[in-house]
Amino acid sequence: MIEPVIWRDNQLFIIDQTLLPGECREIPLDTAEGVWEAIRSLRVRGAPAIGVCAAHGAVVALREKAPDSAERAQRVLSNAVEYLATARPTAVNLFWALGRMKRVAEANPSLGPAELEGALLAEARAIYEEEKACCKAIGDNGAELLHDGDGVITHCNTGPLATGAYGTALAVALRAHERGVQVRVYADETRPLLQGARLTTWECMQAGVPVTLLCDNAAAHLMGQGKVHIAITGADRIAANGDTANKIGTYSLALAAAAHNVPFYVAAPFSTFDLAVPTGDGIPIEERDASEVTHGFGAPTAPDGVDVYNPAFDITPARLIAGIITERGILRPPYGEAIQALHPGAAASAAGAGS
Amino acid sequence: MIEPVIWRDNQLFIIDQTLLPGECREIPLDTAEGVWEAIRSLRVRGAPAIGVCAAHGAVVALREKAPDSAERAQRVLSNAVEYLATARPTAVNLFWALGRMKRVAEANPSLGPAELEGALLAEARAIYEEEKACCKAIGDNGAELLHDGDGVITHCNTGPLATGAYGTALAVALRAHERGVQVRVYADETRPLLQGARLTTWECMQAGVPVTLLCDNAAAHLMGQGKVHIAITGADRIAANGDTANKIGTYSLALAAAAHNVPFYVAAPFSTFDLAVPTGDGIPIEERDASEVTHGFGAPTAPDGVDVYNPAFDITPARLIAGIITERGILRPPYGEAIQALHPGAAASAAGAGS
Repeated sequence: MIEPVIWRDNQLFIIDQTLLPGECREIPLDTAEGVWEAIRSLRVRGAPAIGVCAAHGAVVALREKAPDSAERAQRVLSNAVEYLATARPTAVNLFWALGRMKRVAEANPSLGPAELEGALLAEARAIYEEEKACCKAIGDNGAELLHDGDGVITHCNTGPLATGAYGTALAVALRAHERGVQVRVYADETRPLLQGARLTTWECMQAGVPVTLLCDNAAAHLMGQGKVHIAITGADRIAANGDTANKIGTYSLALAAAAHNVPFYVAAPFSTFDLAVPTGDGIPIEERDASEVTHGFGAPTAPDGVDVYNPAFDITPARLIAGIITERGILRPPYGEAIQALHPGAAASAAGAGS
Repeated sequence: MIEPVIWRDNQLFIIDQTLLPGECREIPLDTAEGVWEAIRSLRVRGAPAIGVCAAHGAVVALREKAPDSAERAQRVLSNAVEYLATARPTAVNLFWALGRMKRVAEANPSLGPAELEGALLAEARAIYEEEKACCKAIGDNGAELLHDGDGVITHCNTGPLATGAYGTALAVALRAHERGVQVRVYADETRPLLQGARLTTWECMQAGVPVTLLCDNAAAHLMGQGKVHIAITGADRIAANGDTANKIGTYSLALAAAAHNVPFYVAAPFSTFDLAVPTGDGIPIEERDASEVTHGFGAPTAPDGVDVYNPAFDITPARLIAGIITERGILRPPYGEAIQALHPGAAASAAGAGS
């Protein structure tokens, strides 16, 4: 299965997703700057994969700077974590994964540079393996929702490229397909960077899952034709009340789904929840460069100097979400309580507060 | 002001809109096939402009075939009208304009080829002038709806390029701007062919109207930010009950507007009403080639052979439409009655039915 982040011969590689589907090329990342740039420019993308890549990036940074003492190694690691966290603002998995790396370092202040590197690499590998296990569980939990003949619409890319293993939202269709359930994926192309057109269709075709590509703005019309039975997207951050930040256009899709009584689901590992943020209003929305819209694919497609609004994400309010498919089961509204009941961190921090 | 269709030195020219905004080039259309191709491939586009171009195309066809008798001229004209009507299926203005040309021919069966050509050219010119006058009236009627500080979102292109004169939906913002009302146009880029990005922004910039370009899928999020006070789009065909066919994505925009209590208006001349079609269900929706989605920007943006759903239009149900801005005033629901009250043809045909 496709691996977006690869650790091989003691070196970090990623598939450069900006080249897909034309070319599936692995590129090495040997510096913290290289890792930061790869995340910022979406060579590696998808909330879980960003976290995994950044975790490995902390190891890369330590190796690059080659500190000569335990103390200096701690400082290098701490700086690297802080630096890598600035690559993108919305997906919480980035901060969550880097937080885990930082805690490993803090728990081992006396380790020499080589030993610390070993411990950090083990943690990065563990994060990746856990995310992959989560993905499979998400796929299995969600697959129960699908039936023969279902049309499943999705937005952006949430398959193996976004996470490793099966992905999140797309995992549901992939696992259902593996179980012999006949489904068709409808892939929103997902402007401006076309992750749906370039990546989701490619993954489905690789897996033998029937897939139809459409422009984002045709989703509501497609629903009106009765072709769509369920909508499932991923998430970049989920607030404590269930409000969900995801790729721009997700909110539009959720509104169209609501208008057609198509149940709208979010699929994400628990690492995507940010309980420190009460509602979607508290989630920062990244705005990206105008050129993504005006020069997306080479030739200019708008007049020089035109003003552009290019938010990378939007917030889908919890009230539009029928369920959140996680590795521990499908959460149902009200999400505040459902998250508290199943979130490992929520229980721990509640216990911590009481002690 | 920009003229999408030009009759000069006894020859038909159009601005090739597929080259905009990079290049503003006039191309001559000397054959019926050339006119058909220009309409089919959206070199000329916008419901009113398609009608105007096809009307002139009937003259071009007559000149091209050079019939040598009145009888043969009638046959040439009849064939040309039938042929040009197959260029695109959804915009009713095409059939309406060609119907006017046909009636001129039928009313003058004994005219020789040269005289018939003269009569037809006069009718084509009249259609164009009437459409331009309608546009100005639409702009003036709609401008009453706009206030200082308003954000006006629109979809596709409905300015001068789509019609001559001010356009339809965009005419409202252009006329308001000329009257000194401070508005900002938010232009959906309008996938797949990017008429909003390429044409609407260009027209606004030419007219000095502040304009912001966004991906179609960001419109709902923008509305959530409180930046949009009114949505106005054009129409390719309006059924007798007010259901409106317009560029794919219009329905999505109307759903987003409804969710944010943003009033959604349609602006179109009466030539866009098709009273023979009771509801939107009766309007044929053109499906276009997959390559518009997969190769829209030059380089391929999806895997070879991917299945694509590419409807060119969708239907916005009348219940989502706050008003229809016409040259005779703003129609309000229920549209069936409002249309009957103001439609010149409706009154005539009702009278005809009674006589």
